[in-house]
Amino acid sequence: MILTVTLNTALDLTYRVPRLAPEGSHQVREVVQRPGGKGLNVARVLAALGHRTVVTGFAGGLTGSELRELLAREPYITDELVPTQGSTRRTVGVVDEAGGGSTQFNEPGPHISPEEWSAFQETYARLLRSPGGDGSSGDGRPERDGDEDGGGGVDAVALCGSLPPGVPVGAYAQLTREAHAAGVPVVLDTSGEPLRRGLAARPDLVKPNAGELAGITGTTEPLRAARAAQRRGAHSVAASLGPDGMLLVTPDGMWQAGPPHSLTGNPTGAGDSAVAGLLSGLVEGLPWPERLARAVALSAATVRAPTAGEFDEEVHADLLSRVTVEESSEPAPG
Amino acid sequence: MILTVTLNTALDLTYRVPRLAPEGSHQVREVVQRPGGKGLNVARVLAALGHRTVVTGFAGGLTGSELRELLAREPYITDELVPTQGSTRRTVGVVDEAGGGSTQFNEPGPHISPEEWSAFQETYARLLRSPGGDGSSGDGRPERDGDEDGGGGVDAVALCGSLPPGVPVGAYAQLTREAHAAGVPVVLDTSGEPLRRGLAARPDLVKPNAGELAGITGTTEPLRAARAAQRRGAHSVAASLGPDGMLLVTPDGMWQAGPPHSLTGNPTGAGDSAVAGLLSGLVEGLPWPERLARAVALSAATVRAPTAGEFDEEVHADLLSRVTVEESSEPAPG
Repeated sequence: MILTVTLNTALDLTYRVPRLAPEGSHQVREVVQRPGGKGLNVARVLAALGHRTVVTGFAGGLTGSELRELLAREPYITDELVPTQGSTRRTVGVVDEAGGGSTQFNEPGPHISPEEWSAFQETYARLLRSPGGDGSSGDGRPERDGDEDGGGGVDAVALCGSLPPGVPVGAYAQLTREAHAAGVPVVLDTSGEPLRRGLAARPDLVKPNAGELAGITGTTEPLRAARAAQRRGAHSVAASLGPDGMLLVTPDGMWQAGPPHSLTGNPTGAGDSAVAGLLSGLVEGLPWPERLARAVALSAATVRAPTAGEFDEEVHADLLSRVTVEESSEPAPG
Repeated sequence: MILTVTLNTALDLTYRVPRLAPEGSHQVREVVQRPGGKGLNVARVLAALGHRTVVTGFAGGLTGSELRELLAREPYITDELVPTQGSTRRTVGVVDEAGGGSTQFNEPGPHISPEEWSAFQETYARLLRSPGGDGSSGDGRPERDGDEDGGGGVDAVALCGSLPPGVPVGAYAQLTREAHAAGVPVVLDTSGEPLRRGLAARPDLVKPNAGELAGITGTTEPLRAARAAQRRGAHSVAASLGPDGMLLVTPDGMWQAGPPHSLTGNPTGAGDSAVAGLLSGLVEGLPWPERLARAVALSAATVRAPTAGEFDEEVHADLLSRVTVEESSEPAPG
């Protein structure tokens, strides 16, 4: 099974309004509520791909209860969130039905106390060393999992998103080292200082976008920036290039892949779908180019879905067959 | 004590952002949560004026629990909300700290079932006939109340705001008749068809703004529209004229009052403060011009307060001494 960590979970609200008018009053036509935060989004996509996922991180207050109620309805996802005194944040995405654009409002996360951080670390250590179940999800659906021997346990960890106030900025480095000590590979998807610090613990894969990569390496050219991230500690780097797809730099080679044609839609959650594609390919033992193709196809299928962060399985299957993956040769040293 | 009815309660969230950018992503600086819906806002102002208030209406789901937790912290307010299966709505007000403007998003209210509507009617009937307490609020603060004999009971009812789906459109007419049968005067603050239907039950006072009044009477000139509302059943009409103050048309005379100077600020909740001013003046037995002056001063003090729907007691006291009330004579029939 796969473990995703979301320290700054959120209750994601999507409001559809006929047209967004600043300083106006809007009657919201439709409200969609979902458990949010990057690691929970990744888990939902993994579940849709048939992978059992355990989610941990923090949830608190009545908004946290609301999030956990919604999470309990998702098949293939096990809730191991740790309670907090402070209330889980909300995010509000306002979709303008006339223009199609989305305007996002993110509440600040609750402050995490030292005791809560300790409780999380205990939960994380326990999960990493859990023997796992019987390899099935318990609802009769077949599971695509990395443990063909039915042994369960954690096959991979994804560390996702921003850190709430109170959590040490080196948190992801520490969590990466612990996972490695338990023999579990780590995918790290964060930005800024938490990413910079996390790199030092040598995560197996990081998935920054070009801007995030430039932010920590000082280099805007994606390939050079990915190489710089490797020198700082990442084994492999999957740099998302927005509508141009993704660049993957690994010890075994480099590949670039893009969708078959340019796509318009809502990019919210596209990066989380890419992480789910890479993670599922990792635990299934797929070759790198297939992992990359899956990440790009899932990401594009998410952009095309009517609801932010969802993806259409048919669109995904169609795109998967048409994503072009090209192997790159080492450029001349710049 | 005063009873306020809010059938479509809301958890009001105010988000402060540095600058509102449509299609942008905003980190919310500060979140303020308050129990909302017009009748709850009226109750909060009444409480600040020293009047014990009982609030009823509906609350449900985890958002309803959040609302009731916040309500429990308010002195002078007793929660008699009736549970619903559906979840209480949220409203989100986004305040642009650069421009000062506010953009409002209102979720739709939950559907009220026939059983829930019956449960509300039973609660309402019980409250109308309650003998009341000992005339004090129980927390040692002196109470300004209409029942000098200490007998408690309901001195006035305010019926406030929109109707959630499932509640009959004639609800306010029915609730007005029941209050009158119990000998309790009624202030009605709603709009559209619920107001039009409510007028037929002869409420003691209605408080539409000029637009709402025009909507049901077809007349944009406030005095003529107020007269038309009286012909349709209202004993008295307090028409809010925005920054120009308020026009009061009663069987005993007509008055108009405005703030001493034009005010800038956030008008959210100003109408609810006006209702609280009129209601408190009613139960204290003040003459009409004093009720009107209080309504205008409270309304203006609310516009000037930094937080939507709050008012500054000093600003209120200062304005109250400077509001000008002018008696109008009957105009020539138009």
